[in-house]
Amino acid sequence: MLTDDIDKPAKCAQPDDLALLVGQDRKSFLVRLKPGLQFHTHRGMVAHDDLIGSPWGRQLSTHLGYALLLLKPSTDDIVLAHLKRNTQIIYPKESGYILMKMGIKPGCRVIEAGTGSGALTLVLAQAVGPAGHVYSYEERAEMQQLARKNLEQLGLADAVTFRLRDIKHGFDECDVDALFLDVPNPWDYLAQVHVALSGGGFFASLLPTTNQVSRLIGALEKNDFGLIEVEELLLRQYKAVPARLRPMDRMVAHTGYLVFARALIPKEE
Amino acid sequence: MLTDDIDKPAKCAQPDDLALLVGQDRKSFLVRLKPGLQFHTHRGMVAHDDLIGSPWGRQLSTHLGYALLLLKPSTDDIVLAHLKRNTQIIYPKESGYILMKMGIKPGCRVIEAGTGSGALTLVLAQAVGPAGHVYSYEERAEMQQLARKNLEQLGLADAVTFRLRDIKHGFDECDVDALFLDVPNPWDYLAQVHVALSGGGFFASLLPTTNQVSRLIGALEKNDFGLIEVEELLLRQYKAVPARLRPMDRMVAHTGYLVFARALIPKEE
Amino acid sequence: MLTDDIDKPAKCAQPDDLALLVGQDRKSFLVRLKPGLQFHTHRGMVAHDDLIGSPWGRQLSTHLGYALLLLKPSTDDIVLAHLKRNTQIIYPKESGYILMKMGIKPGCRVIEAGTGSGALTLVLAQAVGPAGHVYSYEERAEMQQLARKNLEQLGLADAVTFRLRDIKHGFDECDVDALFLDVPNPWDYLAQVHVALSGGGFFASLLPTTNQVSRLIGALEKNDFGLIEVEELLLRQYKAVPARLRPMDRMVAHTGYLVFARALIPKEE
Amino acid sequence: MLTDDIDKPAKCAQPDDLALLVGQDRKSFLVRLKPGLQFHTHRGMVAHDDLIGSPWGRQLSTHLGYALLLLKPSTDDIVLAHLKRNTQIIYPKESGYILMKMGIKPGCRVIEAGTGSGALTLVLAQAVGPAGHVYSYEERAEMQQLARKNLEQLGLADAVTFRLRDIKHGFDECDVDALFLDVPNPWDYLAQVHVALSGGGFFASLLPTTNQVSRLIGALEKNDFGLIEVEELLLRQYKAVPARLRPMDRMVAHTGYLVFARALIPKEE
Repeated sequence: MLTDDIDKPAKCAQPDDLALLVGQDRKSFLVRLKPGLQFHTHRGMVAHDDLIGSPWGRQLSTHLGYALLLLKPSTDDIVLAHLKRNTQIIYPKESGYILMKMGIKPGCRVIEAGTGSGALTLVLAQAVGPAGHVYSYEERAEMQQLARKNLEQLGLADAVTFRLRDIKHGFDECDVDALFLDVPNPWDYLAQVHVALSGGGFFASLLPTTNQVSRLIGALEKNDFGLIEVEELLLRQYKAVPARLRPMDRMVAHTGYLVFARALIPKEE
Repeated sequence: MLTDDIDKPAKCAQPDDLALLVGQDRKSFLVRLKPGLQFHTHRGMVAHDDLIGSPWGRQLSTHLGYALLLLKPSTDDIVLAHLKRNTQIIYPKESGYILMKMGIKPGCRVIEAGTGSGALTLVLAQAVGPAGHVYSYEERAEMQQLARKNLEQLGLADAVTFRLRDIKHGFDECDVDALFLDVPNPWDYLAQVHVALSGGGFFASLLPTTNQVSRLIGALEKNDFGLIEVEELLLRQYKAVPARLRPMDRMVAHTGYLVFARALIPKEE
Repeated sequence: MLTDDIDKPAKCAQPDDLALLVGQDRKSFLVRLKPGLQFHTHRGMVAHDDLIGSPWGRQLSTHLGYALLLLKPSTDDIVLAHLKRNTQIIYPKESGYILMKMGIKPGCRVIEAGTGSGALTLVLAQAVGPAGHVYSYEERAEMQQLARKNLEQLGLADAVTFRLRDIKHGFDECDVDALFLDVPNPWDYLAQVHVALSGGGFFASLLPTTNQVSRLIGALEKNDFGLIEVEELLLRQYKAVPARLRPMDRMVAHTGYLVFARALIPKEE
Repeated sequence: MLTDDIDKPAKCAQPDDLALLVGQDRKSFLVRLKPGLQFHTHRGMVAHDDLIGSPWGRQLSTHLGYALLLLKPSTDDIVLAHLKRNTQIIYPKESGYILMKMGIKPGCRVIEAGTGSGALTLVLAQAVGPAGHVYSYEERAEMQQLARKNLEQLGLADAVTFRLRDIKHGFDECDVDALFLDVPNPWDYLAQVHVALSGGGFFASLLPTTNQVSRLIGALEKNDFGLIEVEELLLRQYKAVPARLRPMDRMVAHTGYLVFARALIPKEE
């Protein structure tokens, strides 16, 4: 297929590509490839020029013999290991599920607040594609700056409008398909959320404590939301040894409770 | 913003829209709206013409007074409650996570085998968007037929090339970004998988038993795959009652073990 | 060893022994063996006289050829499958852990309220042995009657003093080693609990909702209890097939939250 | 009640009592009280003579003002925090459940192998009481020595016969009620186990990997064992803050898979 040949990703790393380098000890590094630069690890150096032009999937070494794999990063790689953060982030196990539960797909218009480090922002921006858009609210300028920089480095900033704002003053957009609140007191903003969401639109929030969940679902019931659901996802990782397969000794026991609801049109009296 | 006004989804249900109707008892129904048709429930009827033109999020009733909510369906709604199936399917908690772990986004080219009922197919088709493509292999004609019909009804069939084939004969595509095997014996096809995947490409599989996991990860190690991971996701649902918040009494304890790996370029000897 | 020979359990079932009969379909039955009686299943009959004198562990059949295993029951067998109940009971996964966390061993004096169907009562009675004692409070006469009958049939009634009482009037005992509250509003009785417990004594409760847990731990803090812990136990069962080992499809997702604390002696002002 | 007065535990700590001291930072210490000795912490000293005669549950301080609680230890306190160990131990969440599943109660005769650090040994010794007995096999002399010392310090050594032996040579006892194997290759000893167990007796094992579980249950099927069960227990701990109740961030994800079975009497041909 001709179009396939044209569109298909280059087999070799190109200048400005985002590369994941994974060391033999499973340490990993995210690097934007630039001719002339050098990449330094704790165990030696490799020139970007030796990476540029190398096929993806190749195993190479630093000048000190430390083995590295040259890979494209997954969304999970970027969020978990490489996003610059100074807040608790939303993890891929939750953000992937949020896409499914909120019907987020190419073309959707989505609001989130707050922006935080941008971990969910980048997942949303990627999922809505060029035909959709993400509006991300944050009231702390330095957080917004960090998230914007993160998104710019990933080439996703065009898909996002960043707004510096306390959301108690409401949202600029209306008729959005989905709205995600990652704030400690989501119950305080449900009137504003309802105004911004399209009829039947998807609402969700992630909360660490059971007290917050109780308070939010009580407020949702009183503010014309329906089909309220509370769920949590637990990820259990295994040691991938064929003859000794077993779960890892420890796991993350809690990231947060997910609350989902739909905006209803109030019945006419 | 003018473009927003043009692009934004209509506030009211239109002919040919896919609607989710949720009854007061939380029973839900997926309906393609067609002028002149009637929708019959166990508790009364409503004319499609009364739904068409109604705003999304409206609460209405059948002629017998059974309350219904008119909503757009999420991916989760479609997969869990409404996909016609005659096989075990891949659930949204796993398919959302698969998108994150395999870096699947607009523009990606992805292979899956087997097609099954098409539950993962539709998630992949949606995620890769119009700029990407899904190649879905199946050797049972009637399964493929069911999946194709499911995808057509969702308007996603254009994003998918269905191939009727035993994958032991290999895949037609090469340099794909990601390849998902949902077959009982994935270890038998790793050579074919390696040929089809781009260098460093993403491989994944979902397997119900620990014996299969051991066998697959052993075979991956011997077939030039690296960064092997085994994980499982557990979804716990809560009763969403503000004053009596608690987990549901029972839960799904097992859907399957997820195995992820990257295709490596063999070291030159 | 001579004493071993004297004390060791008979190899064969004796009159008045409690027998567990497990059918080939894993249906199980708890029977007190009595000469002359008959045991009837849905698939045939066996005379108690054919069981009495049979060695434990023998496989026998009803007159219709339904295979049965003759076994002594475990505590788990008795509680899970055979205790007559008309309330939610405390399951062995929790009751075994309660023994460990509350230091319950031969010789201990323990209070519980309410008695319920006696599931925890029997575990406590067994664990404290002849040198200890259990005081079990209940305000519903018919519940007490059921529990008493359950304990009598297990030969454990002597280890228990049943009291028919609203515990708001306090407990008759003092200086008990441990006190377990299985009531919906444990926070209302903490003063009475403190009077009954020995200094430093063990308190525990099992509660279904997060709201109850929050309320109880708040009240414990204000009533001279310390070392408060909240925990839950999840039991996951596997299909025991060597070549296809995997978790069961579904599991119990919630029995309750366990709350533990120690009674402190208030600091002198 | 007169007998209660005689038997009930002293309200105050006595010489030779085992005391748990819990600091204000939740650090805890297990101490055998001896007149004239001193107890030293990282934050000051307290004389045993100031503890002896103090009521249990009292809050006191070191000479540097570090607050301490004087408590009797639970089985959980002893095993988790204070048992001297140089092996992986069996945790209270499992050992409590093992008591329930294997019907272990006062009067039972139980074999375990290997002894390890004695964590399960002490739970078994306590549960079978003075009328029962535990036979504990170990082939490493230094492990046995450690376990014996642990049991002696807890006053439970009389309930245990320690045997230094490779169990491939079989067990000295027969007709025991229950037998627990904590060894990496339990499938190699099932003939010996069957000889030692009473008819219908309880067998159990704890294994870290799925491969071991598959192998053991395959061997059990071939060696006249029945009612095979595979289970695991997950313990989730919460932050006990009334207004911010939530699970701890991390948890132990795996201690081992529990395998249970009953020894059957082979059918006569």
